[in-house]
Amino acid sequence: MTVERKSAICVLGTGLIGGSVLRAAVAAGYEAWAYNRSHTGVQAARADGFDVSDDIETVLRRAATADALLVIGVPMPALDSILSDVKLFAPDCALTDVVSVKAPVAEAVRRYELGARYVGGHPMAGTSESGWAASSSGLFRGAVWAVGVDPGTHAQTWSRVARLALDCGADVVPVLAAEHDQAVARISHLPHVLAEALAVAGAGGGDLALGLAAGSFRDGTRVAATSADLVRAICEPNATALLDALDDTLRLLTAARDSLAADGTLGELIDAGYSARVRHEDLERWEITDVRPGDQDWLNRLHEAGQRGGVIRTLD
Amino acid sequence: MTVERKSAICVLGTGLIGGSVLRAAVAAGYEAWAYNRSHTGVQAARADGFDVSDDIETVLRRAATADALLVIGVPMPALDSILSDVKLFAPDCALTDVVSVKAPVAEAVRRYELGARYVGGHPMAGTSESGWAASSSGLFRGAVWAVGVDPGTHAQTWSRVARLALDCGADVVPVLAAEHDQAVARISHLPHVLAEALAVAGAGGGDLALGLAAGSFRDGTRVAATSADLVRAICEPNATALLDALDDTLRLLTAARDSLAADGTLGELIDAGYSARVRHEDLERWEITDVRPGDQDWLNRLHEAGQRGGVIRTLD
Repeated sequence: MTVERKSAICVLGTGLIGGSVLRAAVAAGYEAWAYNRSHTGVQAARADGFDVSDDIETVLRRAATADALLVIGVPMPALDSILSDVKLFAPDCALTDVVSVKAPVAEAVRRYELGARYVGGHPMAGTSESGWAASSSGLFRGAVWAVGVDPGTHAQTWSRVARLALDCGADVVPVLAAEHDQAVARISHLPHVLAEALAVAGAGGGDLALGLAAGSFRDGTRVAATSADLVRAICEPNATALLDALDDTLRLLTAARDSLAADGTLGELIDAGYSARVRHEDLERWEITDVRPGDQDWLNRLHEAGQRGGVIRTLD
Repeated sequence: MTVERKSAICVLGTGLIGGSVLRAAVAAGYEAWAYNRSHTGVQAARADGFDVSDDIETVLRRAATADALLVIGVPMPALDSILSDVKLFAPDCALTDVVSVKAPVAEAVRRYELGARYVGGHPMAGTSESGWAASSSGLFRGAVWAVGVDPGTHAQTWSRVARLALDCGADVVPVLAAEHDQAVARISHLPHVLAEALAVAGAGGGDLALGLAAGSFRDGTRVAATSADLVRAICEPNATALLDALDDTLRLLTAARDSLAADGTLGELIDAGYSARVRHEDLERWEITDVRPGDQDWLNRLHEAGQRGGVIRTLD
């Protein structure tokens, strides 16, 4: 039990999220080490006292020997390369990821025949900074961490992934990959796209406008400070769901625009927006206490509870 | 000189902005008192030790006697009522306002024949809270405060208004009313509209989406927590400029949407948004030191300096 509770963790990619997982896992008492492609990133992490290497083969062979849980923390464009190495050097390890979008990762994992012990994950935390320098052991404290409950999920692997999330300080939200991707299109990818549009429209007002900008513009454009490559890597793999969210938004904005042109009012948008924001603020997560991984029908029951706002806060 | 430096201040409307002006003015050593329409607001301000009344006639007659600077802090829909009282009881007082939009206020002031000693103002600060309870003497510290430099502006009144802004802790940005309104449409009113649309689109993903929402959604929707009536009162009077900003935004979002549908990329929006945000972050205000109110051509020179990012930080 103790062995399973703090099984070894091998993080692949030590950017903001992967780096924070490494820090949080070590802080929680896990044996944890990591791979990072860039030597600069490796040196920075080592200088901070972490066990990080740019030798993927050695890192993965050690994971295979230790039966470590692999945590993929690279952006989507680097996923295939990492999976092909995992397939070569540690094909039997339990596997999770902290990449934003879930269905495309699951599809790639299946393509590399690594699906049997894969459980997708997505900690809902970040900053507009990126890279090891921005990582912190406390990034996930109080956050939610989506953990996949798609049909066929391996109960023991699920528990290892969920336990890591809990030990990093997060609440676990059980979710299907497709439903996760639809949800994050609306609450993570759409905010990025709107922030970029707001930044461009604001700058269209020149230095006078940018000089007068205060809290509403600063907050509304905060995530536009994220590097452009990273934003594309996060949003574009979720194109279908993001298109749906963008089309809804364009309809809402066009209706408000037309109403403003026709009769000088912003129409229903303002009341609807206020209600939606209040609904978000008032949303209370509740604790799922009656489902254990591996129980009869546990995947369906966790899925259904997650849809209704349930989270897991402890695992026996 | 001392008399002019800390001339009496009479604030009309003690909500978030007007209330904060009253607090900041008192903290800076001004004799200051205020009117508020709602008795609850009056009681709350009095309980905090401020000289506030709901008797507009008494408040304005005192201002006339003391030659106070009137500061209008009511939302647009209440402006006519306040101006008609000013016209009746204190028509010769110097007059400014802290209402978001400037050209419509200037027009109303002219309609009441109060234009001779009017200088429009707009402190670029706020919170999503409103009312006296949210006000604070430090709200304007480090903020910018737009002060109008339209043709015909009275130099001494301008100095009184600018000095009040400086004494409240703000930097003064000299600006034409029309250019101000175009600028704030992009960096204040548009952020409100986008925040409302994001909140609605996010809530369209149900409790799962709202439960997964983290920093990007929270920041992107923060100002949607502002009361709907106040958002309409801020944005709708600036319909023409806001339509222009909304049309730009719709073009940007539609191009990104079409690009995402056609080839799976968000196109140029992400790079442009990143650059615009960085431009905002890197923008440095510089101090205008070579123009004194009343100097030859001072209005044009201040206007031109303000357009280039100049601010006033001291007045002799």
